[in-house]
Amino acid sequence: MSNAGAPKPAHRLTVALGDRSYPIIIGSGQLSNSDELTSWLPGRQALLVTNETVAPLYLETVLRSLDGKHTQTLTLPDGEAHKTVASCEKVWDCLLEQRFERSCTVIALGGGVIGDLAGFAAAAYQRGVAFVQIPTTLLAQVDSSVGGKTGVNHPLGKNMIGAFHQPRGVIADTSVLTTLPEREISAGLAEVIKYGLIRDAEFFAWLETNIDALIARDEQTLAYAIERSCANKAAVVAADEREQGVRATLNLGHTFGHAIETATGYSSWLHGEAVGAGIAMAAHLAHSMDWLTTEDQARVQKLLRRAHLPVAPPAGISSQRFLELMAVDKKAQDGRIRLVLQHGIGHATVTDEVPEATLRATLDHFTGGQ
Amino acid sequence: MSNAGAPKPAHRLTVALGDRSYPIIIGSGQLSNSDELTSWLPGRQALLVTNETVAPLYLETVLRSLDGKHTQTLTLPDGEAHKTVASCEKVWDCLLEQRFERSCTVIALGGGVIGDLAGFAAAAYQRGVAFVQIPTTLLAQVDSSVGGKTGVNHPLGKNMIGAFHQPRGVIADTSVLTTLPEREISAGLAEVIKYGLIRDAEFFAWLETNIDALIARDEQTLAYAIERSCANKAAVVAADEREQGVRATLNLGHTFGHAIETATGYSSWLHGEAVGAGIAMAAHLAHSMDWLTTEDQARVQKLLRRAHLPVAPPAGISSQRFLELMAVDKKAQDGRIRLVLQHGIGHATVTDEVPEATLRATLDHFTGGQ
Repeated sequence: MSNAGAPKPAHRLTVALGDRSYPIIIGSGQLSNSDELTSWLPGRQALLVTNETVAPLYLETVLRSLDGKHTQTLTLPDGEAHKTVASCEKVWDCLLEQRFERSCTVIALGGGVIGDLAGFAAAAYQRGVAFVQIPTTLLAQVDSSVGGKTGVNHPLGKNMIGAFHQPRGVIADTSVLTTLPEREISAGLAEVIKYGLIRDAEFFAWLETNIDALIARDEQTLAYAIERSCANKAAVVAADEREQGVRATLNLGHTFGHAIETATGYSSWLHGEAVGAGIAMAAHLAHSMDWLTTEDQARVQKLLRRAHLPVAPPAGISSQRFLELMAVDKKAQDGRIRLVLQHGIGHATVTDEVPEATLRATLDHFTGGQ
Repeated sequence: MSNAGAPKPAHRLTVALGDRSYPIIIGSGQLSNSDELTSWLPGRQALLVTNETVAPLYLETVLRSLDGKHTQTLTLPDGEAHKTVASCEKVWDCLLEQRFERSCTVIALGGGVIGDLAGFAAAAYQRGVAFVQIPTTLLAQVDSSVGGKTGVNHPLGKNMIGAFHQPRGVIADTSVLTTLPEREISAGLAEVIKYGLIRDAEFFAWLETNIDALIARDEQTLAYAIERSCANKAAVVAADEREQGVRATLNLGHTFGHAIETATGYSSWLHGEAVGAGIAMAAHLAHSMDWLTTEDQARVQKLLRRAHLPVAPPAGISSQRFLELMAVDKKAQDGRIRLVLQHGIGHATVTDEVPEATLRATLDHFTGGQ
């Protein structure tokens, strides 16, 4: 499956959302796909939002692809700590100082942080301008580039301020993954594994076969994993754009994961690492509920480990603190914690039926009962 | 028409927007309409956002109508200067500190500033929660309560940050208008007159007959003017929710008006006063284009004056400054200023065909050629 032949032509996937449908272009060297990129801009003005890590690597290539457009660049500091309303205000300041009109486009070049915040800035500028995503991490390519969720963090909760705002198009260039730190590849694989777990058992088995090639960044194996992940997410989002139902299953591992990120101040662990630990915690809980066999729980744990992901939260977060943070989760209803849990591998549901004692026992298992 | 008989039952108007349709309840004493108000709340949590001027007058009544709901109150300072991202952050802080869930409702009790900012805060909180409007100024009742435009100002432009977010329902209580300062009544009448000018010549004639009763705050005359204004706006919004076309005609007088507000720092004139002057300026320009007869221009001027509205901008804004500020307007496209102009009374179109010299001559007429 993972042979390094001649570069294949780009894959093109459509996220089907009626008049908000858009393409995802996946392949090696696609940052230079000027024809596709410029075709998504409704006007001549574009603001490219990126960060200090990504800019030296890829900014020039993308600016070349935007040749002929009136493009400004805003380079923000790197990191989840900058996914704030204050960063959005920098985007708005820049757009207004340059007199950008309603026909302008905001282009996000970077990981999930840049994509989410630039997307929200685009959603709110003049009540909504065009938005294009060029995700440069595996996690952003398989997750935040599909589905139109944008937003920023609040000190009291992650992604609490935001909007649904679909991009005009997404470019997922697999060659940018070769410069990613290993931790970032693993973090992205947490979301990839998630798609297998919630709705695609065949893909989960494929991942068990190909995880080493993915860790080794074989571009064609990565392209396949990205395409299948995006196709899975696109199918879920097409069925439930505003997360009234099935879309919530995409949050497998995220309620635990967000609690880890909030407790640690969004700084020590990457989002995908927190999700990896969260998936392991959710699998433990599903096993406690008799929804997942001992063997399947072991398969989940093993694949996470082979992807070099944590399978437990960091020390120092008590069960009580977990419960408090999980109660603030966006899925909470009338004070009841709602969780996404697996039913075997390849199926998941949203439930508020987990007895508090069962949840507490899983938390105590991972926190040592603090 | 304007007789003070027994209080009539409330008028109910529906803004037809498919699954985002909502009712507007118009009438005396409707702040106490607890049944209607509470029926719009999807969950038990409500945050009431109001300001220091309105709170002492009406907060208690509305809280009584919300009896049985878990309601928090956030009281902001009064005035357009507080229609900022920073005020939205106060709303978000409050929602998160109280652990408000996605099923919560934000209720705006106040004028256009409170409605616009609380509406944007609701649009962005957890990517969108329920929103209810209780407008307490005439301007808010006839304008911002219909159509779902929410937003806040930026130092470089008015309403530049925002969202389209429809309320679940609107209560327009005519009895609150009796405590309004006279300037606020006049400011609201600027928008009322606008509806006659852009699409309802019969209503314009009715206003010529009834303007004195409106200024005298006769409640039944006001209720009729509010209902017909809202019906006009609702028809326009239903035809063009996202302002791709005809909705832009609602901005008659606003491109000039926004320039006045920005130039004066949003503080010296009320929005409706700036719109009044803007309507007079637009009428002058339409007359220069031979789109409005001398007689009709005089009718516009006369009705504005009888409504105690300014018919010229404040001194000190040069023609050049007007042109600069108008170029930042949201309607601008490819650097061309687009204006809403009347074709007679009862019709208006959006145009970018005004020769610069003609616009300049109108500006010079009002600014003394500075």
